[in-house]
Amino acid sequence: MRMDVLTLFPEMFEGVFNSSILGKAQEKGIVSLNAINFREYSGNKHNRVDDTPYGGGGGMVLKAEPIFSAVEDVLSRRKEEMASATESTSPPRVILMCPQGEKFTQKKAEELAQEDHLVFICGHYEGYDERIREYLVTDELSIGDYVLTGGELPAMVIIDSVARLLPGVLGNENSAVSDSFSTGLLEYPHYTRPAEFRGWKVPDILLSGHHANVEEWRRREALRRTWLRRPDLLDQVELSPQDRKWLLQFEVEHENEVDPN
Amino acid sequence: MRMDVLTLFPEMFEGVFNSSILGKAQEKGIVSLNAINFREYSGNKHNRVDDTPYGGGGGMVLKAEPIFSAVEDVLSRRKEEMASATESTSPPRVILMCPQGEKFTQKKAEELAQEDHLVFICGHYEGYDERIREYLVTDELSIGDYVLTGGELPAMVIIDSVARLLPGVLGNENSAVSDSFSTGLLEYPHYTRPAEFRGWKVPDILLSGHHANVEEWRRREALRRTWLRRPDLLDQVELSPQDRKWLLQFEVEHENEVDPN
Repeated sequence: MRMDVLTLFPEMFEGVFNSSILGKAQEKGIVSLNAINFREYSGNKHNRVDDTPYGGGGGMVLKAEPIFSAVEDVLSRRKEEMASATESTSPPRVILMCPQGEKFTQKKAEELAQEDHLVFICGHYEGYDERIREYLVTDELSIGDYVLTGGELPAMVIIDSVARLLPGVLGNENSAVSDSFSTGLLEYPHYTRPAEFRGWKVPDILLSGHHANVEEWRRREALRRTWLRRPDLLDQVELSPQDRKWLLQFEVEHENEVDPN
Repeated sequence: MRMDVLTLFPEMFEGVFNSSILGKAQEKGIVSLNAINFREYSGNKHNRVDDTPYGGGGGMVLKAEPIFSAVEDVLSRRKEEMASATESTSPPRVILMCPQGEKFTQKKAEELAQEDHLVFICGHYEGYDERIREYLVTDELSIGDYVLTGGELPAMVIIDSVARLLPGVLGNENSAVSDSFSTGLLEYPHYTRPAEFRGWKVPDILLSGHHANVEEWRRREALRRTWLRRPDLLDQVELSPQDRKWLLQFEVEHENEVDPN
């Protein structure tokens, strides 16, 4: 898979693209990551990529032309690369990072991980000329309801979440951890050595070597954490009769804590 | 304000900390950003910071000791720095980046922007020893419901959103853009030169020079975009009688589109 990012700050991506999982995924040839400065496509001698908005008001607006030219260049180069490929490839996705976009979710990450080529467009505290939205992009995405200085960090977040889903990117030891999300519950508490740290002890049951009891404890504590922090997730989880007993028990315990009489 | 990040991959932060707004905010002395490798605090000759989980199972767990030592070192250094300061400072916030955490929002960004010192702890596809959660951290935060390979990108997202709120970080031309969020609606469409690009024209009204008409068009289109994409936001917006007329009009137009008879 290839992922190209159009940005005015390609140097922001170096550390993230070359470290850890993303660095290794590139070394293994599973994914190719590129940050491209769309200022190179300005088409004018002053390298201007933004201008004042029609209709007046503050702020600057990113011009349509440099973004169209950069995306088209990236797409045509990919087409040449793939011309010799025997497998048919899906049409590229051109993704605009913006606060008005669809909320990015794990489901969207899984959908994007099926693609051959993703192109990300990152604005930077400026608006986009509306024609980019209307005639160039296939998706508009937002990673959450908070304001950032640009689309660069959101693009990195999406690239990381997509890349880790590609076959061969995570080793077995890591994919095991991600599997814990598949229960639909938050993770149970983890403990490792030492068994006592500053007087704080690991629960006895985890040191008991009794596998079935450990599993039961973990299920109950995962359930408890989810009930406390993200009760909304419980609606989508298949609960056993034992799970339901525990949930009732948490409620009773909680009421007693709140009102000791 | 000082923000320290504890991570096994400090090199991931270089590009982000030194570019654009965050780079300038540091040059101006408004914020100090530091990525610290907590492997330096392992306290053992093999530099091990993780170990297998008690109770068995896959995955690795970050040990309590290196994280406690690193946080305590960072806090005591800050205390020395501030010893000569006349203003009393608020107690530091120690923030654990984790999928089980509270969902990060703009409101949380505004709250954190009031602090003097934030410490971020980033795990990397491993669990945390539960004693870190129970006895060391003040906050657990998640930036969204998607799975990432580590807490580094979420820490960068939070740092960016907090730093841009600090007085003096954004110039006037940028803060104007962020102000557009204050209406509670998504932004209206932006256009800049050229007035015609590949046959796609800028709406005439924006070229008319009639200020009141432009404002009216912008309010209507911001309302339309919000109604289409994020109707949930409309509940929190104060709507004028004219706004309500437009909303009814969108609904009629939409019904006609869906059913042309």
